[in-house]
Amino acid sequence: MTADPKAFFESLFHAAVAAADPKTTIPAHLPARPKGRTVVIGAGKGAAQMAQAFEEAWDGPLEGAVVTRYGYGAPTEQIEVIEAAHPVPDAAGLKGARRLLDLVQDLTEDDLVVALVCGGGSALLPAPPGELTLEDEIAINEALLASGAPISAMNTVRKHFSAIKGGRLAAAAHPARVVSLIVSDIPGDDPALVSSGPTVPNTATRQDAQAVIEAYGLQLPEAALRHLQSTEADAPQPDDPRFSRNEVHVIASAARSLEAAAAEAGRQGINAVILSDAIEGEAREIGSVHAAIAREVALRDRPFAKPVLMLSGGETTVTIREKGGRGGRNTEFLLSLALGIDGVESISAFAADTDGIDGSEDNAGAFADHATALRLRKAGHDPKTLLAKHDAWGAFDVLGDLFMPGPTGTNVNDLRAVLVR
Amino acid sequence: MTADPKAFFESLFHAAVAAADPKTTIPAHLPARPKGRTVVIGAGKGAAQMAQAFEEAWDGPLEGAVVTRYGYGAPTEQIEVIEAAHPVPDAAGLKGARRLLDLVQDLTEDDLVVALVCGGGSALLPAPPGELTLEDEIAINEALLASGAPISAMNTVRKHFSAIKGGRLAAAAHPARVVSLIVSDIPGDDPALVSSGPTVPNTATRQDAQAVIEAYGLQLPEAALRHLQSTEADAPQPDDPRFSRNEVHVIASAARSLEAAAAEAGRQGINAVILSDAIEGEAREIGSVHAAIAREVALRDRPFAKPVLMLSGGETTVTIREKGGRGGRNTEFLLSLALGIDGVESISAFAADTDGIDGSEDNAGAFADHATALRLRKAGHDPKTLLAKHDAWGAFDVLGDLFMPGPTGTNVNDLRAVLVR
Repeated sequence: MTADPKAFFESLFHAAVAAADPKTTIPAHLPARPKGRTVVIGAGKGAAQMAQAFEEAWDGPLEGAVVTRYGYGAPTEQIEVIEAAHPVPDAAGLKGARRLLDLVQDLTEDDLVVALVCGGGSALLPAPPGELTLEDEIAINEALLASGAPISAMNTVRKHFSAIKGGRLAAAAHPARVVSLIVSDIPGDDPALVSSGPTVPNTATRQDAQAVIEAYGLQLPEAALRHLQSTEADAPQPDDPRFSRNEVHVIASAARSLEAAAAEAGRQGINAVILSDAIEGEAREIGSVHAAIAREVALRDRPFAKPVLMLSGGETTVTIREKGGRGGRNTEFLLSLALGIDGVESISAFAADTDGIDGSEDNAGAFADHATALRLRKAGHDPKTLLAKHDAWGAFDVLGDLFMPGPTGTNVNDLRAVLVR
Repeated sequence: MTADPKAFFESLFHAAVAAADPKTTIPAHLPARPKGRTVVIGAGKGAAQMAQAFEEAWDGPLEGAVVTRYGYGAPTEQIEVIEAAHPVPDAAGLKGARRLLDLVQDLTEDDLVVALVCGGGSALLPAPPGELTLEDEIAINEALLASGAPISAMNTVRKHFSAIKGGRLAAAAHPARVVSLIVSDIPGDDPALVSSGPTVPNTATRQDAQAVIEAYGLQLPEAALRHLQSTEADAPQPDDPRFSRNEVHVIASAARSLEAAAAEAGRQGINAVILSDAIEGEAREIGSVHAAIAREVALRDRPFAKPVLMLSGGETTVTIREKGGRGGRNTEFLLSLALGIDGVESISAFAADTDGIDGSEDNAGAFADHATALRLRKAGHDPKTLLAKHDAWGAFDVLGDLFMPGPTGTNVNDLRAVLVR
């Protein structure tokens, strides 16, 4: 690496963002041009950007539609962008889901369907089956969210109450070939769990759904419970012959971006380890744990041998206890970490939101090291007071250590990096 | 390891506690019997237990005194136990410090001084030098605690305002040989930092103390600032010939206990890693970070290869937001962790206070695994609600998963262990 940790950390950020940028990832996963038609479908908060990138990269005729959240649209030329409600589905979502199902009707085996799927599509594609209504689907979803069930359990239930989820959209496209390009927002990156997998089946059954409903004591509408008794609720299984020619590619995720940052560190001669792609919780507490592990490395060369870069992803939160400060979760994480590594000279750190904006400020994140707390004190500021006031933006602004790359056009949550030399 | 994770975790706990038990560690570090007198001195919250263990193990005549906190005494036969105030020093502490200095006067080079030192001794041994008063020493200490300075910086200041700290007690014992047996409560286990090192000098100088005072903007009494201008404030340096025959042994610490637990796991065929001996912060948040790293191991075999035991130490806290629940920091940590590993079958976990009592309950800690949350739900309890109510003791009581070894007679903070198979 270069002698300057800031330049090093910036290069990691750019590697992480590039690995998640649809303008990079979609061209790298383009299917072969079919004999017949090419139909693009898709859903999720980043679906319009994915559609744009696909249009740019695709050489040939093209049609289709994607559903995204209100306000998340982007100008496209051939692919229609439909906006609908998130996180509570609405009638626009119903129409959007219907439109996607219609688009894949009456295709032949010479046709290609490209599914562009990213996080948020579960709510954007309501498609209540049988006698169920939009209200029933909303009620099912609310019961799931309140239950605290993990995403895999939620998905097991959702896919049995939908005409589009759990691979049904891909099944509807048969005999066309379906290539799914997926940006994962799910820890573990199981593509069947992203937006409830409209084009990706999994093996969960009605009996599994029943077990989740009982385990979490879910209160579901009467019509839903009736629906689950009928074979109509059965979702297609992965070995269904209708899926035999399909392909699924996870083209971006928090884990992939962390791996890209780790690879960039490796190119600069620094061994990197990934702690987790899904660390959540109060930013200052997460900062203090990262500091404790970094101190253990600095003092005792464990659990990792120095020099080492520790990476983590996921999205922390800031519970505002005192108003008036400026700062996002990444600067709050870093200011807390700075207090934990105060004076331990071999440690430096970086944290930033991969979308380029940390909370509501103009920065993506910041840099910190062993001298951050000391420099704040020398500048007449008490770092603990700044942290208590949630004024972490102010702290790093004083020091000239904010990181401001501007919006990146992609989002795989946060990139946190702690270097111990 | 045995097939039963509970028995495995219990064996780790017992290994960690044994490694910190003065009844084990003191006999293992007994100096040779001297030609002359044997004088025991000491200070800290566990000093009376150390004195007891030394008396039991020592074969020969013996005299001395140790200073401990009010209510922390224990019956001894030859070593006097003096109780004094902690964390704000009082006149009993002044007399105790004086007594220790008197005990080591007029010794010869045939005599042996054994210093038994553990955490808490800084406050228990006030000894204002020159014209400084007890009130000055209290004021200096309050300024340090409010500054947020790390322990090494605090020590650099404290030892320049004391007639006993920073190796001065050992220097006073010259020409007797001084063997220090130290139980560390300091991350990094630098023996000069435990109780401000009355028998262990370090290299910090008056100029270093001045730099800390300026960096943290400490407001010190006028007399203190004057004292720092005089050479009288100079603390003896480690290469002082008066220390040439001395020995210092760190006989127990959180790190040593974690290492003992790791070694026990190794004997049972499980590779163990130590994340940190000093993780602090809100118990539920620390639990969620441990869960995230465990999931990363379970899902992707990183940052550690399965099977692996992850160990951490230190003391978490619980900020009570809703009253009426029962539970300590270790059960709160575990209940939060259980929600984070819900359904990830390969993960099990344990957390306990090494003193045998978690908070104000009758348990030391508890066991948890992938099925903890599910079993609570099946028993009609919502684990998230129990966590919100801080009723983690209740949760593990319902499941029969509390760990109740009773008081252990030692304390090196918490032992947290997460096993991923």
